[in-house]
Amino acid sequence: MNSDASRRRDVTVADVARAAQVSKAQAARALGNYGAVSDDVRERVLAAAEELEYRPNELARSMNTGKSHTIGVVVGDIENPHFGLATRGITDTAKRSGFNVILINTDEDTEAEIDAVRVLLDKRVDGLIVAPASSVETQHLRRVHESGRPLVLLDRKASGLDVDTVAVDMEGISHDSTSYLIGAGHRRIAFVSTLKTDEPYRDGMVLDSSQISDRRDGMKRAFDEAGLNLPDDLIRLNAGDNESIKKITRELLQRPDPATAIIASDGLIGLSVVEAIQELGLRIPDDVSFLMYDDFAWTRLTTPPLTVIAQPVYDMGVAAAAALIRQIEGRKVPAAVPEFTAELIRRGSVAAPRVTGVGN
Amino acid sequence: MNSDASRRRDVTVADVARAAQVSKAQAARALGNYGAVSDDVRERVLAAAEELEYRPNELARSMNTGKSHTIGVVVGDIENPHFGLATRGITDTAKRSGFNVILINTDEDTEAEIDAVRVLLDKRVDGLIVAPASSVETQHLRRVHESGRPLVLLDRKASGLDVDTVAVDMEGISHDSTSYLIGAGHRRIAFVSTLKTDEPYRDGMVLDSSQISDRRDGMKRAFDEAGLNLPDDLIRLNAGDNESIKKITRELLQRPDPATAIIASDGLIGLSVVEAIQELGLRIPDDVSFLMYDDFAWTRLTTPPLTVIAQPVYDMGVAAAAALIRQIEGRKVPAAVPEFTAELIRRGSVAAPRVTGVGN
Repeated sequence: MNSDASRRRDVTVADVARAAQVSKAQAARALGNYGAVSDDVRERVLAAAEELEYRPNELARSMNTGKSHTIGVVVGDIENPHFGLATRGITDTAKRSGFNVILINTDEDTEAEIDAVRVLLDKRVDGLIVAPASSVETQHLRRVHESGRPLVLLDRKASGLDVDTVAVDMEGISHDSTSYLIGAGHRRIAFVSTLKTDEPYRDGMVLDSSQISDRRDGMKRAFDEAGLNLPDDLIRLNAGDNESIKKITRELLQRPDPATAIIASDGLIGLSVVEAIQELGLRIPDDVSFLMYDDFAWTRLTTPPLTVIAQPVYDMGVAAAAALIRQIEGRKVPAAVPEFTAELIRRGSVAAPRVTGVGN
Repeated sequence: MNSDASRRRDVTVADVARAAQVSKAQAARALGNYGAVSDDVRERVLAAAEELEYRPNELARSMNTGKSHTIGVVVGDIENPHFGLATRGITDTAKRSGFNVILINTDEDTEAEIDAVRVLLDKRVDGLIVAPASSVETQHLRRVHESGRPLVLLDRKASGLDVDTVAVDMEGISHDSTSYLIGAGHRRIAFVSTLKTDEPYRDGMVLDSSQISDRRDGMKRAFDEAGLNLPDDLIRLNAGDNESIKKITRELLQRPDPATAIIASDGLIGLSVVEAIQELGLRIPDDVSFLMYDDFAWTRLTTPPLTVIAQPVYDMGVAAAAALIRQIEGRKVPAAVPEFTAELIRRGSVAAPRVTGVGN
């Protein structure tokens, strides 16, 4: 490895000036393309800059133009294809407007998110798109907003933060999907989420993520409308990794009053739930019905194909980038962020329960 | 949206100095924690900095410490869970050493990669991990290396560039997998890859990606050893999107002398190939055998579960980050980058061909 310190030092305007045998002010004007500078000086400076592989100081450049043409994106889990697809929507849109996209992954950890926002601001991004890990701990985002820095939220709202937010109506689709399961005869409907909480779920619990909170509310409304109670004992949070999700799934299905249907809160959870169901030797939908958030391509390849809640993730990425660029460019009349709705795609993983639940 | 320009202006050392009623030099010393400064001045400066929400200029700070504690990662397709998992390995390792990770996605486009490297260097990252889109067009990477900036390649080699490279032995696993299919009776073995080329594949063609080139070489060696010729007409490149992959799959299976086995070059291609096979009403492995690179969780959930080539992707991310941090910290005795091997995981998608191929 070449680690000669002298070669690693960045070439400065002073170096270029010295090589071109001009003053530093002249070199700065020629490189910055401002002020009066003779053709001869300009040529010598540019030749020296090329020779030395001079890289203009990004900070100095952005002080001239006021923009770094870079967007910072903070997502919770880059391994989740949901974010991968949203990121593609963001990147495609940014590229068309001449912006580069820098991503940081937070692993759904608020401390990591605070750090990510700090790093991106230090790197002088023109604006931020954040999928907040928490809808409650949002002081760092409020500070960004209050400093006037363009900010758009993706997927999740943040309490007390009135900024452009691109998210689907989760309460609505959760209500509709739950009603669909209730209509098929299910009463013991489980919901499995990665959301971290200190205690097991109980009725009325404040949930830190607007997405999960809205889904709970939608389920509750569907049960209420059917004159039933949401089975709180089947709302299972803290489904962190493959093993814990499988354990939760086994518990849900092997208890005396088992779940007859499981809703997985995202596609990664869904994978583990389906695998656990298969390992128990149970069949979908004969023994247990299954429904999940995220319409990943593999859900069409399982036997049976899975019933899913599809979100327009790519388009949401596009809308988030468009809203941010609008803010960065300071357009006077901001267009409203479009509303997005999710869609229940009925494939083959929901049927009537084998033994109709007795209510609760 | 709040876009008051005066509030957006970054707070400078001069602002802090003014508020603390000290000289700029005193403020700089107190903020930068160097030189002599009285306790009284330090307290006033730090209080003013907090009051004004002063954010130290990253460039200035890195000029003091020589490091920004940021690693830049350039990947080809963040939607591909392969890169998602590798990125997690990188991030986990970086975090433990106090480094933040900034990602840029290139969509496997060399121009975008050149731009990504430029942006990351402008943002003063301490080093770069790149999965190069091309193993041939690598001048921009050579320049990075020649400037002495720490650089590690992931997944793919770059010709003429002698830097730490974390990749599996693709030739070997491709040879072994192909031999396994030949041993099962297959002669008409297809290979489907996204690699973009100007012309269809022909024998001896120079392939721009070391990964794909090595896989071709491994297939060729396996055929040679069996006294057979690699069926060049079944090596299909340019499998760009879902529709084109399905079209290629249909062509491979509906021709007079069809493929009896298909190797998909990654998990995203595999999804589309399997879907096309299902849409044709064909069964795996009775009608066609299937094998793919990448052991994604969903491959265990299909009927039958799929035979795959598993790569230690997470561990490779860990090794790439470790090698880069070693370079950044300038350790005198660099440990060798560990060698990684892929593994053929035999599940249920390979069987003897329905009609044994007649060779070619």
